[in-house]
Amino acid sequence: MTVTLIGVGLMGGSAAIALRRCGWATRLLGVDSSAEHAAQALSLGLVDEALPLAEAVLAADVVLLAIPVNAARGLLPTILDLLRDTAVLVDMGSTKSGICGVARSHPKRAQYVASHPMAGTEYSGPAAADGAVFDGKKAIVCEQHLSADFALNLALAMYRKLNMEVLFYTDPEAHDRHVAYVSHLSHASSFMLGLTVLEVEKSDRHIFDMAGTGFASTVRLAKSSPETWAPIFMQNAASVSFALGRYIENLQQFKQRIDTGNAEGLAALMAEANKIKKIIQ
Amino acid sequence: MTVTLIGVGLMGGSAAIALRRCGWATRLLGVDSSAEHAAQALSLGLVDEALPLAEAVLAADVVLLAIPVNAARGLLPTILDLLRDTAVLVDMGSTKSGICGVARSHPKRAQYVASHPMAGTEYSGPAAADGAVFDGKKAIVCEQHLSADFALNLALAMYRKLNMEVLFYTDPEAHDRHVAYVSHLSHASSFMLGLTVLEVEKSDRHIFDMAGTGFASTVRLAKSSPETWAPIFMQNAASVSFALGRYIENLQQFKQRIDTGNAEGLAALMAEANKIKKIIQ
Repeated sequence: MTVTLIGVGLMGGSAAIALRRCGWATRLLGVDSSAEHAAQALSLGLVDEALPLAEAVLAADVVLLAIPVNAARGLLPTILDLLRDTAVLVDMGSTKSGICGVARSHPKRAQYVASHPMAGTEYSGPAAADGAVFDGKKAIVCEQHLSADFALNLALAMYRKLNMEVLFYTDPEAHDRHVAYVSHLSHASSFMLGLTVLEVEKSDRHIFDMAGTGFASTVRLAKSSPETWAPIFMQNAASVSFALGRYIENLQQFKQRIDTGNAEGLAALMAEANKIKKIIQ
Repeated sequence: MTVTLIGVGLMGGSAAIALRRCGWATRLLGVDSSAEHAAQALSLGLVDEALPLAEAVLAADVVLLAIPVNAARGLLPTILDLLRDTAVLVDMGSTKSGICGVARSHPKRAQYVASHPMAGTEYSGPAAADGAVFDGKKAIVCEQHLSADFALNLALAMYRKLNMEVLFYTDPEAHDRHVAYVSHLSHASSFMLGLTVLEVEKSDRHIFDMAGTGFASTVRLAKSSPETWAPIFMQNAASVSFALGRYIENLQQFKQRIDTGNAEGLAALMAEANKIKKIIQ
């Protein structure tokens, strides 16, 4: 199977390692708008060749689209135009509504599978590629009824090889609304926590001497790439903004109970939040 | 060495396991206001005996105070009153200003070491005790100049046995102000993130199908005990409220850049937050 990776960063590079290791990909072609990343992917052995877009797509049995979501949406029609009749395009973006909207009117829509592997780390670029990153995680597929059987089956086979559980989420708008809460909001929360503490460090130099494991785990996502995340927030602006608004209201309520000495009310809010134990082990 | 634990939950119980294992504690006495926790600590073998407060303090070479910070502050004078002249009291609370204030006027202040082991997990109670919880972490000591040499040396020896690095932070107010940012704010952020997503789950039942590792790490602290954390927030109200205010402002700024389509400004905020990489590996 010839696999073309458009984007050889964390996601594309990780897929390359895992799909080569299991034998599913026998030839890996890389496309990247950064010449440096393309060269790095070659020298790391993630891909066999770095090629221009058209050449790489024409040679592919399957194309994996793993670039920032705004660029992915823009490039999708061109890739579908180039795609051979038996080939399949799978995108790996974290937002699905925009790209599904663009794909819907394309004559080769059936060759496209709109997916979102819920995996990753806070690192980015080819050097961050890690063949284990998908292992045991979930991959969402949207608008599966618009994909041809052969395309859907190929995507499912690939995710099975990556040891991912596939969940169908027909409606891309519902996907984006939900993922705003369980992924995008976590990133916003972490980015701004990092920023808040860094601002204070300017006057209180030794503040990080005290940082423990709790701080490390809540601030981990603040290391994520702005190039990846600004487009995600922008493409999911309405849902992320709504979720952020709710989050800010809850933080204001929390602060207000501290300010008014309402220890009981504060404990009640925390007890309510404790119910997350039932869901996240 | 006879060690008396006042509070046999996560912190006290963990210290019991670790100090017995290394041979530093040869006899462990437990005091807990919850009869259930006291019985559990006995049956788990955390302590050799569960005793009333006075009896346990009178028998101690060292008393570890590991109960919620409001209760600790209230109990400190009674414990110092009871303490034998050669014995030492070490508290393990996450806020230091209040308890140091109470201790300062006590005639036996020199036998007290105000400390804050920066360690723990999101779990609580005797069953959560874990001898490895302190390993490699930091312990803060405040107002060390008010502790007698013998008391300070005993506390340092104990933290060395727990494999903790001791940092002196003379001023308890500065300790509380800094810890508001690098620990308490993380907890507030996580509690309210959990609450926000749980509120949405009421209408969107399957939202947690999508939860990944990013959500899990930012929401982990939301499982923490309200009994421990409400008093911490209340005793550090001014600093936590100030830090929360700054955090909310940054989140509002983040939201505003999403709402106005300012992708560049949003990416700039994230790039600034990325500097946390230099500090937290």
